[in-house]
Amino acid sequence: MIGHVNANRVDREQTGGDGLEPVITFTTDFGTRDGYTAQMKGVVLGICPGARLIDVTHDIRPYAILEGALVLNAVSRHFPEGTIHVGVVDPGVGGPRREMALNAGNRFYVGPDNGLFSFIFDSCQPWEARAISNSDYMLPDPHPTFHGRDVFSATAAHLCAGRPFDLVGPPIQDPVRLNLPQAFQSQDGIRGQIIYVDRFGNLTSNISAQMLTRKARSIEVGNLVIQGIRRFFGEVSEGEPLALINSFGFLEIAVNMRDASEVLDLRTGADVRLLW
Amino acid sequence: MIGHVNANRVDREQTGGDGLEPVITFTTDFGTRDGYTAQMKGVVLGICPGARLIDVTHDIRPYAILEGALVLNAVSRHFPEGTIHVGVVDPGVGGPRREMALNAGNRFYVGPDNGLFSFIFDSCQPWEARAISNSDYMLPDPHPTFHGRDVFSATAAHLCAGRPFDLVGPPIQDPVRLNLPQAFQSQDGIRGQIIYVDRFGNLTSNISAQMLTRKARSIEVGNLVIQGIRRFFGEVSEGEPLALINSFGFLEIAVNMRDASEVLDLRTGADVRLLW
Amino acid sequence: MIGHVNANRVDREQTGGDGLEPVITFTTDFGTRDGYTAQMKGVVLGICPGARLIDVTHDIRPYAILEGALVLNAVSRHFPEGTIHVGVVDPGVGGPRREMALNAGNRFYVGPDNGLFSFIFDSCQPWEARAISNSDYMLPDPHPTFHGRDVFSATAAHLCAGRPFDLVGPPIQDPVRLNLPQAFQSQDGIRGQIIYVDRFGNLTSNISAQMLTRKARSIEVGNLVIQGIRRFFGEVSEGEPLALINSFGFLEIAVNMRDASEVLDLRTGADVRLLW
Repeated sequence: MIGHVNANRVDREQTGGDGLEPVITFTTDFGTRDGYTAQMKGVVLGICPGARLIDVTHDIRPYAILEGALVLNAVSRHFPEGTIHVGVVDPGVGGPRREMALNAGNRFYVGPDNGLFSFIFDSCQPWEARAISNSDYMLPDPHPTFHGRDVFSATAAHLCAGRPFDLVGPPIQDPVRLNLPQAFQSQDGIRGQIIYVDRFGNLTSNISAQMLTRKARSIEVGNLVIQGIRRFFGEVSEGEPLALINSFGFLEIAVNMRDASEVLDLRTGADVRLLW
Repeated sequence: MIGHVNANRVDREQTGGDGLEPVITFTTDFGTRDGYTAQMKGVVLGICPGARLIDVTHDIRPYAILEGALVLNAVSRHFPEGTIHVGVVDPGVGGPRREMALNAGNRFYVGPDNGLFSFIFDSCQPWEARAISNSDYMLPDPHPTFHGRDVFSATAAHLCAGRPFDLVGPPIQDPVRLNLPQAFQSQDGIRGQIIYVDRFGNLTSNISAQMLTRKARSIEVGNLVIQGIRRFFGEVSEGEPLALINSFGFLEIAVNMRDASEVLDLRTGADVRLLW
Repeated sequence: MIGHVNANRVDREQTGGDGLEPVITFTTDFGTRDGYTAQMKGVVLGICPGARLIDVTHDIRPYAILEGALVLNAVSRHFPEGTIHVGVVDPGVGGPRREMALNAGNRFYVGPDNGLFSFIFDSCQPWEARAISNSDYMLPDPHPTFHGRDVFSATAAHLCAGRPFDLVGPPIQDPVRLNLPQAFQSQDGIRGQIIYVDRFGNLTSNISAQMLTRKARSIEVGNLVIQGIRRFFGEVSEGEPLALINSFGFLEIAVNMRDASEVLDLRTGADVRLLW
């Protein structure tokens, strides 16, 4: 699965020219209360003062690697090439899990090798992953419970400052990859399940737009039967359920202007049955 | 109501010279958990790499257009001319409501034409509004449930990059405007109501400082009578209620170092009666 | 305690050269909902357009000065010299408490003189504190309930723009300092207490790594006895309690992949007893 990448440095021309230094994004389960993410940013600015810093989210549920992986994959594809994405959902920090830097189509990722980048491997090929072992890319004496600051942010900052990707450490050929439950074709349609519930209570399934090779007659979820697929929420009345293809490209169950998860009492893992 | 604006481009000199590119701010009901706002920022940086990005808030209650309108108005006046404010509280996304860009006194606003910019029309004149119809200002194939990313952020980024405002689309002469309940002079004082409750539980009324043409003797709200108007919280003891003119320029009911909304059991819509 | 500082201006060379303007950070109890922090940023950008703005946290609990002081101290040491840290946890706003600017080892702090910078005085010496009295460093007519915007952010921006620190106002020789409960050596070990609970529910004590001059045999907290000190969470099974030295350099009680505060029913103030 290891491909060849031309650049062994973060290519500043790719970020838009202008002499701008790369963008570094942050996706964590640290919350915003304790200043942990600001410690990471302070470290970055000490190493690469011109880095431009963007928060993706710090509200991944504690230890929810899969949730972080879904968000990182959905978000990072919208950033320009040359962007460096730091991801820290890292319950195994300090233990045997490896620290990883990844170049996937000239988008860079830095974080634990625990599955957090699972869907990047699928969506961006070829990719090149390396274990972070070169202490020049870390703070001195990294604290065993805060690699997000002392290893991952430091490595991102050094890449941002133009240090070569190759020297981060030895290649990783077998990064940890999480499996999502897969939707599958059945005799009369598609069977899938809910894999993500967002802030509005909208329910994302694992049934992708690509699987919808025919016109859907109905979608069954919980005790509910929804007729057909809509384009946007306002096609049904306030409080009515609907199905649509969401902005991630997946079948979503929603209730117009309501929290579908609450109204329909459905969570991640609920079965979704689409009938032709 | 359409006035003339001299500039048909975002004027970079207005932002402070220095060759800095404009500031883009974001006000949404997207929350911070799912990475939606970061998708918007990625799109902006892809179009206008030097844009400087500021979050106003992503914690407007879902679909609460009026709340978003109040915050946008209060905040945007403090930003320099040339700033571009993206607002997305957009329950009608994908439906018939128009997409709008607005130049109000060389401050720019981009978002749905659903009332979210209501108070900008009053506070900044002359203004010029345009429907966003030029596909050069959007991402290709905008997703019908995420105009915040594919239309509004893209348009803001193109304005930021120097594309002319005039070419966004045709003028809008009749933008949607929400009405706030108005306070009014009564025989013995002013009658108003609570229109906003902030994070501290402080209760903002719709009685403006300008209406206070005489010295207020007392303020009645719920079962409470408050004597006179104070300048700051610490003028009364901890746990005591008070009235003051807040930093928005409106009469506010507070409880020193407590959550007034909770302590007084008052919410948006509660009557406020000021007596001379 | 007043020392001499060489620079009377924020030294731009210290921020990494490159002609970059200083970083300004924000630590408040304003929450993120109402746009208060964005008003502060708008003011900064109006005065110092090139300022680079970083949020530390806006989720300090309302009025919790000590909590803000702990976070500011933990975070600001990780930022480069020349950084300006705005701190606003300010229940006494508008009253007699002084407004303060502080230069501590070429890191700058601006906020109320109410103890919010207590631990900076200890960790950075020499320091120089000044009362903010020069109206050139404020907005005109500062609002008595929002010094965070009209005084502190404005002063930070003027410092950022290169105005001299000396002219902020007269020296403060006796800034307000909060006392943390101190851990102390007992006959058989150390007695301390929990001083901070973070987003994960991890419990930070006031027992510093420096106090651990011998090997700890056990730690008693609540009804629990923990054997020895670990390096990282994953050294014990999921759901098991442990003690470790955390990334602030203090003894921490945690439960691997659980919320220790909840599981052990312990809060700030709980006694911690370490035995040799």
